[in-house]
Amino acid sequence: MKLLHTADWHIGKQLNGFDLLEEQWHAFTQIREIAKMEKVDGIIIAGDLFDRAIPSVSAVKALNEMFYLLNMEDGFPIYAVSGNHDSAQRLQFGGEWFERQHLHLATTIADALKPIETDTTQVFLLPFFDPIDARIYFEKEPDEIRTINDAMPLVINEMATQFHPEKHQLLVTHFHVQGEGNEAYELTSETTSTVGGLSAVSASHFQLFDYVALGHLHLYQASPNHKMRYSGSPVKFNTKEAKNQKGVYIVELDGELTTRFIPIQPKKDLIVLKGTYEELCSSEFYTQQPAKGSAFFSIKLTNRPLDQNPRQRLSEIYGDIVELHYLLEKTSGDMEIQHMRKRTALNEEEMIATFYEEMTGQALSDRQQEWTEETLISLRKEGGQS
Amino acid sequence: MKLLHTADWHIGKQLNGFDLLEEQWHAFTQIREIAKMEKVDGIIIAGDLFDRAIPSVSAVKALNEMFYLLNMEDGFPIYAVSGNHDSAQRLQFGGEWFERQHLHLATTIADALKPIETDTTQVFLLPFFDPIDARIYFEKEPDEIRTINDAMPLVINEMATQFHPEKHQLLVTHFHVQGEGNEAYELTSETTSTVGGLSAVSASHFQLFDYVALGHLHLYQASPNHKMRYSGSPVKFNTKEAKNQKGVYIVELDGELTTRFIPIQPKKDLIVLKGTYEELCSSEFYTQQPAKGSAFFSIKLTNRPLDQNPRQRLSEIYGDIVELHYLLEKTSGDMEIQHMRKRTALNEEEMIATFYEEMTGQALSDRQQEWTEETLISLRKEGGQS
Repeated sequence: MKLLHTADWHIGKQLNGFDLLEEQWHAFTQIREIAKMEKVDGIIIAGDLFDRAIPSVSAVKALNEMFYLLNMEDGFPIYAVSGNHDSAQRLQFGGEWFERQHLHLATTIADALKPIETDTTQVFLLPFFDPIDARIYFEKEPDEIRTINDAMPLVINEMATQFHPEKHQLLVTHFHVQGEGNEAYELTSETTSTVGGLSAVSASHFQLFDYVALGHLHLYQASPNHKMRYSGSPVKFNTKEAKNQKGVYIVELDGELTTRFIPIQPKKDLIVLKGTYEELCSSEFYTQQPAKGSAFFSIKLTNRPLDQNPRQRLSEIYGDIVELHYLLEKTSGDMEIQHMRKRTALNEEEMIATFYEEMTGQALSDRQQEWTEETLISLRKEGGQS
Repeated sequence: MKLLHTADWHIGKQLNGFDLLEEQWHAFTQIREIAKMEKVDGIIIAGDLFDRAIPSVSAVKALNEMFYLLNMEDGFPIYAVSGNHDSAQRLQFGGEWFERQHLHLATTIADALKPIETDTTQVFLLPFFDPIDARIYFEKEPDEIRTINDAMPLVINEMATQFHPEKHQLLVTHFHVQGEGNEAYELTSETTSTVGGLSAVSASHFQLFDYVALGHLHLYQASPNHKMRYSGSPVKFNTKEAKNQKGVYIVELDGELTTRFIPIQPKKDLIVLKGTYEELCSSEFYTQQPAKGSAFFSIKLTNRPLDQNPRQRLSEIYGDIVELHYLLEKTSGDMEIQHMRKRTALNEEEMIATFYEEMTGQALSDRQQEWTEETLISLRKEGGQS
């Protein structure tokens, strides 16, 4: 069985307010081409399909279309699980109809214990879950299942009772899995939290499987070992991922396990620039960079510019500046000041619009924007600000 | 062709905070039984499947299961449109997979112009839309399409070009359609708004169809004429609907059009009681009413009770009181004071929980409730309230 392994699409994600949907479509198109060229038997998407529990309307539309192209138009079976960013319960809608076309999207522990059987392989789809889900499913007390590491043996043992001796066993899941290969790996912010069962799961739980297709960590280099791999995200979501090559794995399970990493190229790359304000504004420097509009830039300034509005000048040169930080010598070494935050705090209209969209998944309508502005204007008048 | 016509399920709706999901399941079970007993060829659901654009997780789960039972388990084709309460764009997710199993759920004007063809009938599914949607679809200026009445001839003419002379034409849609039969009808609050293209659409637009299955008005008696009917909602959503018999239509299109209204019984009925506080608290009166817990009560008091907490006493007698109003003689005739509102305003915890759920579609988690309470307690302390 030959599969394409991808994960962490995070459809609908923004990079400090910059929409990544075009970038995500660009990556998707390459994934689709690779799947066709490699003539794979199916496509694994190991969780975090959406970026949030209630995705925006445009995100919903995009994922639906991507699924349609791969599954209905090209006829690829899809093996997907929900991740910690997805609402498992909302993703359940339509599941039975998707199954009929071999779009398998597991969202519960119960789903994980019903493997999808192909001629040669059993595919187990284990979505992200938290210890509470496991307690409910296995009818255990809180002190019996405190962490995911407590829950995992129960899940895997139930899976193992169903193993067919003449088939391969493949697991798709979405956790921070730690093995000898990634113990020392610098992780993205995605994974620094250890609360609520999000702490690392030991790779030792998964020894029985021929291949474990992982999602959650965005860097493919963070894989715990050669047969348990992160494909990484197809798009750079974070300046920590700026220098990371994105791509997918092609996994072949028949005979010896083989995995090949196939790179995906960004449409607009994410470039981190560091230097003094004067350096970055000099034509000797900026003519060496990707042209304005062809990349997202994260800029770290090593001095404080005299210019009153450095962001404006830098935007004129570079285009989309997703971050502007200052790396200044202070009392103790480097200290980052997020200029971003300051700027946001000044603009109440944007704050309200962002909050509303976060909460409702929809942008403010024109009328709502008008109301917001009118209200803020009258509030400012009351407060004597204008 | 024999069809069951229902509409306005509003899954997830609450009656002043009282969950109606059990009531909706009770009605659904009857609809399913009727469909089986009548051996219909399909089920029409004429819009407002959900009660809001971002339904709660439990509502999403319920509608998915209802669709599953009717369509996948019983094998009924479903002919549905989105209503003004639904998010057309969110309901699109999975549409192509649903189609394969004859679950047709139209959400756009474009969908409406591709009839579903059976051996004998063409089913046109026209979702609720607003004038802006029509302007975009037909590429018209605002002054060319100001209202739905301006848009409707364009839609119907395009449909008419596809009419098959030897077939019946059936339209499913979700608007306030006005004809000779309902001009004087007292409408529920649902339809009093005339802004944004929500004003009544003339029945004359739809003369070409053999039957028009309508949704939007919740009372089946509000049908514009004998071949354009509202099925009404299957559940009472409003005290104005309290005395209204709920049910579905069985529509037969072959030969002469016949329609039969089949009633649906509530599990917990909605009862309006009116009288003095003393009358309603007397055992002579309340022993004549449905027992506590077996109905929802809307209570209109004609005097102001001396009792400090009349709601508490009435709840002890009647159980679920969804409304408590005062009908008091004031300067000019009857004046209703919504006690409900006052009560809500006093309880900040509930306000926050309701607001959060309205915004996010999800209830506060236990932890969030704790935070809310802690925060309010400390705020009250600061404010000297406790």
